[in-house]
This record gives sequence, structure tokens and C-alpha cells, in this order.
Amino acid sequence: MADPILVEIMRDDHVESVHRGAVAVCDAAGGLVMEVGDVAQHVFPRSAVKAMQALPLVESGAADALGFGDRELALACASHRGEARHVDLASTMLSRAGLDGEALECGTHWPLSHDATVELARAGREPSALHNNCSGKHSGFLCTCRHMRLEHRGYVGFDHPMQGMIREAMQDVTGVVHDGRNSATDGCSIPTHAIPLKSLAVGFARMATGQWLGATRAEAALRLLSACMAEPFFVSGTGIADMALMQAAPGRIFVKSGAEGVFCAALPEHGLGIALKCDDGTGRAGEAMIAAVLAKLFRQDDALSALLAGLASPDVKSRRGVAVGRVRPTGALAIQEPPAT
Amino acid sequence: MADPILVEIMRDDHVESVHRGAVAVCDAAGGLVMEVGDVAQHVFPRSAVKAMQALPLVESGAADALGFGDRELALACASHRGEARHVDLASTMLSRAGLDGEALECGTHWPLSHDATVELARAGREPSALHNNCSGKHSGFLCTCRHMRLEHRGYVGFDHPMQGMIREAMQDVTGVVHDGRNSATDGCSIPTHAIPLKSLAVGFARMATGQWLGATRAEAALRLLSACMAEPFFVSGTGIADMALMQAAPGRIFVKSGAEGVFCAALPEHGLGIALKCDDGTGRAGEAMIAAVLAKLFRQDDALSALLAGLASPDVKSRRGVAVGRVRPTGALAIQEPPAT
Repeated sequence: MADPILVEIMRDDHVESVHRGAVAVCDAAGGLVMEVGDVAQHVFPRSAVKAMQALPLVESGAADALGFGDRELALACASHRGEARHVDLASTMLSRAGLDGEALECGTHWPLSHDATVELARAGREPSALHNNCSGKHSGFLCTCRHMRLEHRGYVGFDHPMQGMIREAMQDVTGVVHDGRNSATDGCSIPTHAIPLKSLAVGFARMATGQWLGATRAEAALRLLSACMAEPFFVSGTGIADMALMQAAPGRIFVKSGAEGVFCAALPEHGLGIALKCDDGTGRAGEAMIAAVLAKLFRQDDALSALLAGLASPDVKSRRGVAVGRVRPTGALAIQEPPAT
Repeated sequence: MADPILVEIMRDDHVESVHRGAVAVCDAAGGLVMEVGDVAQHVFPRSAVKAMQALPLVESGAADALGFGDRELALACASHRGEARHVDLASTMLSRAGLDGEALECGTHWPLSHDATVELARAGREPSALHNNCSGKHSGFLCTCRHMRLEHRGYVGFDHPMQGMIREAMQDVTGVVHDGRNSATDGCSIPTHAIPLKSLAVGFARMATGQWLGATRAEAALRLLSACMAEPFFVSGTGIADMALMQAAPGRIFVKSGAEGVFCAALPEHGLGIALKCDDGTGRAGEAMIAAVLAKLFRQDDALSALLAGLASPDVKSRRGVAVGRVRPTGALAIQEPPAT
């Protein structure tokens, strides 16, 4: 059974491409508040669970010992764009732990930000592992290892204690056994574990409320999500959906994208977690889906809901910047046009 | 009725994302040789029909008058990567017609080639309209206008004679009326016309064979496809599927990609045209689909078929360059593994 079409790409008045997907919105007890498509399907959450993967950094005491504030914690949960402030902060985090970019095992790529790439090239420089969009998360892993006096080399491996701590935390938060059978390797070389979409949503409801978690974990989870919501630039970067959505309602929306069209989110005031997957892995559609879901969940707040609905249906533009179409949420995610006045 | 899943993105042994699509393979008389999914659906061909859009350049005598050879004709059919040789040749074409990059109405963007972008930035330069991936096609339009003593300004508009000539040619080649009702604006500001996928395939069978076309048009079509097959770099660029597929069997395969997951192709020796659309508009899947279709159509040629099958299932790599998964054609496009020996 195919997941439903949730986003259409319109060129003028014609549907040019379509994106299917599934969405789960859950409370911390596991209750499904909204269900679209197959929410039992196993999904690799990729970078969408970085806040869960950062739990050991806080729980171990490493974050406090190294004096990390909101920005450092946000960067530890980030898929950043490789802008100068991201790269500099990752470097600072590592230096606090007596390390530098050489310790990173995430691999090197040019900044995801086009402007940062041009800036780097203009300066005659080459990218390093610090420019990798995952360098903040990896810096958090390295700081945790150093604080716990673990040999940090090989920290990306499935059998390294760092990955074991992450699996334990994710298992606890999502309620799903992480025994390696649904594991594969992420783009940044650490394991990623496919679990039911619904369980991801439940996990983020627990992260946002602290419910069903022990006191230490609940505190760490709230602190991480709060840090991300307070410093959305350090979780993502200029012009990115995650940042725009968190800025739409400061402190009320946590959003994190993952590769291959995954989005996770949490709404503390509603006590809800959200997880969605665009079946074909396309970011533009995942962005429209999460914005449309949020517009629905905040429908009691007209101004916020309208702002989110706008983010859910951006224009498609020509190379001259003229609108020649638009992204349109559809089906269960269709956005009601305001009545003509 | 949803189109079938034709490409799976595998992470380790798990399916991470899926791509649906439709494929039509036709002869010049309109006979369907292969049909997958809904081949009657209207598809915006986007850049996949640039060779059809270049017919007036040859038929008008402009190409001969300006001394254009295979490279210039290939660039007139190109979605190039903005590499230096592309940009220089577009500039040369325009100068032959007494124009320069200022006359282009396609808009400006940084080169699609990452290396070309870095090179441009390192040189402290900014991109111009010549770097636009469509600058070769637009240069062809401008050369046609100048040769025909038409006012070239506004040549991107639906009502400009240049676009009228293109519509006439496309209508004749595909057999579909282009009256504007299925038109929208392409990324480079010219009209794009949605027509049945099957009609696109028929059109390329006619382009490759000359059948069902008048003598002048047949000659122009063969000359354009031959130029593209002879100079695949100038139709696309370094590392691009179009180039790799045409290089796999020089002179035997014409391939042209379009935005939003479209591919058109022609096989002169088989007298066949091919058109496909990845429903979600993703290039990686369109590339795998066209390579898999070609592997099937050349199944009598073991070595070529194996080469094409390899291009249909590239590795998915981590940022450290390690294979962590692969692209896998499936369903009607599944590639038979060679029997164990």
C-alpha cells in the first residue's frame, strides 16, 4: 500500500512532480494524535535524532565540565551549513577537550552553505572535517569520550562505548530495541538505526515533556531541546527550514531534519512529538510536510498557523527570480485557504 | 493508480527511500516497445527536449552561416555544468552573431559544477548568464534570431517568433498540439509544454531515424543528435550521467536529462525513442532508470549491457568515501544479476 501524495510541485497550474510520505504525531504515552500513511514503517532517522544522540554529552557531565551553554549544545545537535560561526564553535568545543579537528572521524566536505563555500574558496582555503555538517555532533561525542576518559579513536564504530551509550539512550527514549539488526552506516560514518516512524514521534514527545524518562535523562532532554530552540542558527544555518520553523515560534517548536526526507519535531506545550518521512527522500518535500503539519497543530493560533502555512508552500522560481510555480501540500496535509472576505 | 517503484535507495541491506516512475519506449510509428507505469501522463519535458528546441537553429541555416560544428550544436542542446570550456564556447557562439552574454535572458546562477564554482570564486569572479546551464541553448536561439533578422529581445516569451518556431517543430516531431493550454514557464524563462510521456518517446524515435519528418527536418534532427553523441562533454559535463551514458557506446546512444527527473533518449540502430519521468522529480533516480532501461534494450550486447547496469546502480557513499549502500533499479527495471560461475 503506497503512502499518500502529500506534496505536489506545481508549475503554473499543472502538477509537475509529486511526493508521498507518512506522518506520525504522538504523545509521550504512545497515543497517536495524527496518523498519515504507514507509521509502522521502519525509517532511518539519520540526523533527525541528533538531540537524542547528544544525551550522553549532558548526562555524563561533560557539557557542564567543559562549560557548554546553549550554543554548544545546539551545535552538538546540529546539521550545520558550514558557516564560519559553526566551524569556529566546533573548533572551540574540541579545544576545550584538548583536541582539534584532526580527531573528527566524520569525513570532509565543502560547506553545505553555498555562500560559505564561495567564501572559503575566495580565501584560497580548502574544507576540513570541521566544515562537515556533522562536526558539532562529532565534537560532542569526542568531548564525552574525553570527559569519561575513554579512548576516543574509533568512536564512530558500532562497538565503541560511545555508540553503545547512544543506543542505550535511544532505546530508552523511543522504546525500541537497538540490537544492530536494523542498523546501517550514516553518511558521517556512525551507525544509524531504522525504527518505526511512530516510535520516533513518541521519543520526541518524551524528549519534550520528560515523561517516561528518568530524572537525569528528562533534564538532559529538556536542556538539549531548549538549547536548540534558543539557538536555531547553530542547529542549522542561514535559510534552512529547521531554523525558520523554530524562529516562527521561539521556544514552542523544536524541529530537526535528517537526510533522505526525514523530519522530527516536538511541541512542548502540546506534549507532542512528530516524525515524518518523505518516501523518496527529498528535502524540499519533507520541509513542506513538516511546515504543513505544524500549521495544522497550531491552528488555534491564527497568525502562527498562517506563517507556518506560508513556509509550507514556497514559490518555485525561475533563474531570474520570478515565481513560476509553487510547492503545495495536499491530501491530509492540504492547507485550507482563508475564506475570501 | 500510482506508478510503480522503479528505484530503491539501499542503506546497507535496508530500503531507505523509493522512487516511482513511468517509462515509454516507442518506435517512430508510435508503437510501444516497452511501457511501465502511466505513459499517457502529461510531463513537462524541461531540458530533455533541447535537441528539438534546437531544430530551428539548423533548419534556418543559421548554424551553417555561422560555421557551427558538432561542439556548437551540442552546446545548443546542452544543460552544461558551467565549466570553462562550456562558458567560453557559448561566448564564442554569441560573438559570431555579433552579440555577447548581455543578450541572454536565461538568468544567472553559479555553475552547476562544484569545481567550476570553486574555480570561479578562487579567481575572485562572479557568475554571469553565460554560466547558466542553459546558456548554450539560449545562444542558439539568439543566433537563430540574428540570422533571420528577427528582433531578438524578448526571445523567451511565448509570443515571440522564436518560441513559435520551437512549438511548430515540437508539434511536428511529437504529433501533439502545442497551443499553450499545457504550457508553463521553465527555469530559464522560456515556455515548457507538458505532453504525454509516450509522445516524447515517439518524437525521439523520429529524431533518431528521420522517419515521419520532412527531409529538411530529418536532416537537422540527425545532425543535432549526431553532434551530441560526438561531443557529449558539451551536452552535459564532467561526471554527469548524460555524458557517461553517451560515452558508453559512442554514436549509438543519445541521452538528454531534464529537470524534475525527466530523461529522453534515442537509439538510432534500434529506431527507438525513450522517455521517462521519475514521479518525484529526483535526478539520481532518473539517472538510474535511464541506465537500467538502456541496459535492458542492449541486452544482446553483454559488455555494453553490463557497463550500463553498473551505471544504473552506483554506490551510496559516506563522507569518507566508503560504500554504505547503493542505488537499486527494481520492479520492471530490476537488473538480472549474472549467474554465478
